[in-house]
Amino acid sequence: MLIVKKFGGTSVGNVERIMNVARRCIEDYRKGHDVVVVLSAMGKTTDDLIAMAREVNENPSKREMDMLLTTGEQISVSMMAMAMGALGVPAVSLNAFQVAMHTTHKYGNARLKRIDTDRIMNELDQRKIVIVTGFQGVDKYDNITTLGRGGSDTTAVALAAALRADACEIYTDVDGVYTADPRYVKNARKLEEITYDEMLELATLGAGVLHNRSVELAKKYGVQIVVRSSLNENEGTIVREVTNMEKMLVSGVAVDKNASRIALIGLKDEPGIAFHLFHALSKYNINVDMILQSVGRAGTKDISFTVTEDVADEAVAILQKSFPKSNYEKIDVEKKVVKLSVVGAGMMTNPGVAANMFEALYDCGVNIKMISTSEIRVTVLIDESSMEKAMNAVHEKFALAD
Amino acid sequence: MLIVKKFGGTSVGNVERIMNVARRCIEDYRKGHDVVVVLSAMGKTTDDLIAMAREVNENPSKREMDMLLTTGEQISVSMMAMAMGALGVPAVSLNAFQVAMHTTHKYGNARLKRIDTDRIMNELDQRKIVIVTGFQGVDKYDNITTLGRGGSDTTAVALAAALRADACEIYTDVDGVYTADPRYVKNARKLEEITYDEMLELATLGAGVLHNRSVELAKKYGVQIVVRSSLNENEGTIVREVTNMEKMLVSGVAVDKNASRIALIGLKDEPGIAFHLFHALSKYNINVDMILQSVGRAGTKDISFTVTEDVADEAVAILQKSFPKSNYEKIDVEKKVVKLSVVGAGMMTNPGVAANMFEALYDCGVNIKMISTSEIRVTVLIDESSMEKAMNAVHEKFALAD
Repeated sequence: MLIVKKFGGTSVGNVERIMNVARRCIEDYRKGHDVVVVLSAMGKTTDDLIAMAREVNENPSKREMDMLLTTGEQISVSMMAMAMGALGVPAVSLNAFQVAMHTTHKYGNARLKRIDTDRIMNELDQRKIVIVTGFQGVDKYDNITTLGRGGSDTTAVALAAALRADACEIYTDVDGVYTADPRYVKNARKLEEITYDEMLELATLGAGVLHNRSVELAKKYGVQIVVRSSLNENEGTIVREVTNMEKMLVSGVAVDKNASRIALIGLKDEPGIAFHLFHALSKYNINVDMILQSVGRAGTKDISFTVTEDVADEAVAILQKSFPKSNYEKIDVEKKVVKLSVVGAGMMTNPGVAANMFEALYDCGVNIKMISTSEIRVTVLIDESSMEKAMNAVHEKFALAD
Repeated sequence: MLIVKKFGGTSVGNVERIMNVARRCIEDYRKGHDVVVVLSAMGKTTDDLIAMAREVNENPSKREMDMLLTTGEQISVSMMAMAMGALGVPAVSLNAFQVAMHTTHKYGNARLKRIDTDRIMNELDQRKIVIVTGFQGVDKYDNITTLGRGGSDTTAVALAAALRADACEIYTDVDGVYTADPRYVKNARKLEEITYDEMLELATLGAGVLHNRSVELAKKYGVQIVVRSSLNENEGTIVREVTNMEKMLVSGVAVDKNASRIALIGLKDEPGIAFHLFHALSKYNINVDMILQSVGRAGTKDISFTVTEDVADEAVAILQKSFPKSNYEKIDVEKKVVKLSVVGAGMMTNPGVAANMFEALYDCGVNIKMISTSEIRVTVLIDESSMEKAMNAVHEKFALAD
């Protein structure tokens, strides 16, 4: 069996943890399996390097940033190979160019194009554990690229696909995927299985234990992922196309606190006004999420939309610059809001989910500010102050703890 | 003009110093020159990485050690490129595989075989400053190698040769090469010029401001080196084949404190005994430097030799294991000794140097324990306690301060 195992920065955060991960990987090796390990940078290494870069240049070149940050994973993988060596198991570390991991040349956010498997297979044939740097690649001119934050998950899934691995295990600091965040919902339950689409919705909502692109990639190539904890031996959550479980209507409740609502009140009701508005924002790479247009007073309209909280002020500034003050009454920004979602593949064939969710919220007195839906998700925007109450009410309503 | 500039770890030890080096390199760039910068790892990075490695494995794989350590230079070069970017100058960092720097596969002590110049020339043609990682290379299987401690000097000289650079400047924390260590000899004088052979003798003697192999390489390819300080604008010392100076008999006085004398007293005077002795040591990779054989009492002989201090105890243990106690009377180890040398290309044609040196030592009451010579060097072994006195006496004798 060929197993790809990915460990995040926390799991290799110090020398002791590196030894623990080494021991864990060696168990599978000693059973006769081929083991490929994908690692992120140790603990806060990436953040420290970013901070150091900002000291010399507030707006550093993305190419040089990738050159700098990729040293983090190279340190992890060589340390891990040494740790395994100390435990008597032959191991070899490989960085992106040694593998090679070919990517597009978009620094900071490159896409994997192709992975050469010769070197890895060759090392596995010599009964070595192969340890690969996550997160990084090389473009066609040998420049070093990175896959964006969380890209190590993508590396692991892509490697599993390229190597036709029998298993792809993503180790994290939680046991798996839960029906809700256990910090807020006491009786949240770990899911045994979840579909790619459900996982994608959860990842997009910020409840993600997995990097979004890694799930897309796993879906595309049919790579079955197991999400489990590096801190204990508990069974994790399996992510795959069709789950064996009785189809639950709803798999989980997710919240995304990184949301702000911007409202333009009293906009002139002219054709093209919405286009101009969202065009101005997209020019500055500001992603808009939920959108609501309603009829305002006296021949005007109101447009509200959500953006991530960190760009809310920028979005307002752009709007003030793009629209003469005479075109609208005022701009409102609300930052203390959260997106609350229920996600479930079973929803597709069952129309009652939204209504049930709204009922649960109504019963506990939570006001809904905006609504959006997809085939397998219903999302509402609510006040941050009622988040915990709302989560528990919805979790209860769909009997997720049972 | 194409200039290669090499800065050591101290010169890029923190963000402020990186900015200083960036400014210094930009001066040449703004004059219209092509500038290639070679950097070591920042400050104590390499030592810190070694210490971390030892925490997981006391005897780590050399391959993995090279994989780990080479992250140090990659951090330096990307930081430097960002620093130059902040100063408005386009710069690009390249590591050994991007250049590429082809080496043998002897991890930890690889030799440069060939340097591709296409990428560097291409970047220079776009009027970028090119910043290259010192110390590292790749073998023919894309494994990462290192050139051994101080290897960044070698990288710089090899690059200067490959690029047919017009100048190769090695920046260090001293102004250049002195007639003696100014900490011990107050009126030591900075040399304007020195030959490769003289520099090699000085480097070997531990007085080296330059890595030995870099000087050999510079000699082989006729690369003229300038050694100067990164902390001030003083003219440095030029290292080249033939100096323009009036040929001085002696260029400098050097000391090497890393020496111990081992003496086997009362060895049986049998054929082959010296062979067995030094063969035993060479089997364990122990380098022997000065050797003295003398007639002992009653048909025995004494053999003394020097080794570096760190292997003295190991050498003694090897001898005790290799020779039955009946073959000799006793083994003496003396660690508080230093090698004192005078070096000068002029010596070749002038036989009086050794005699003058001995006279100076005699006049100040310093006892000579061993003597060895090369074409351009006379070395004596003396007590460490008389080192400073001896240095000053010899410096004076050859009028080096004038």
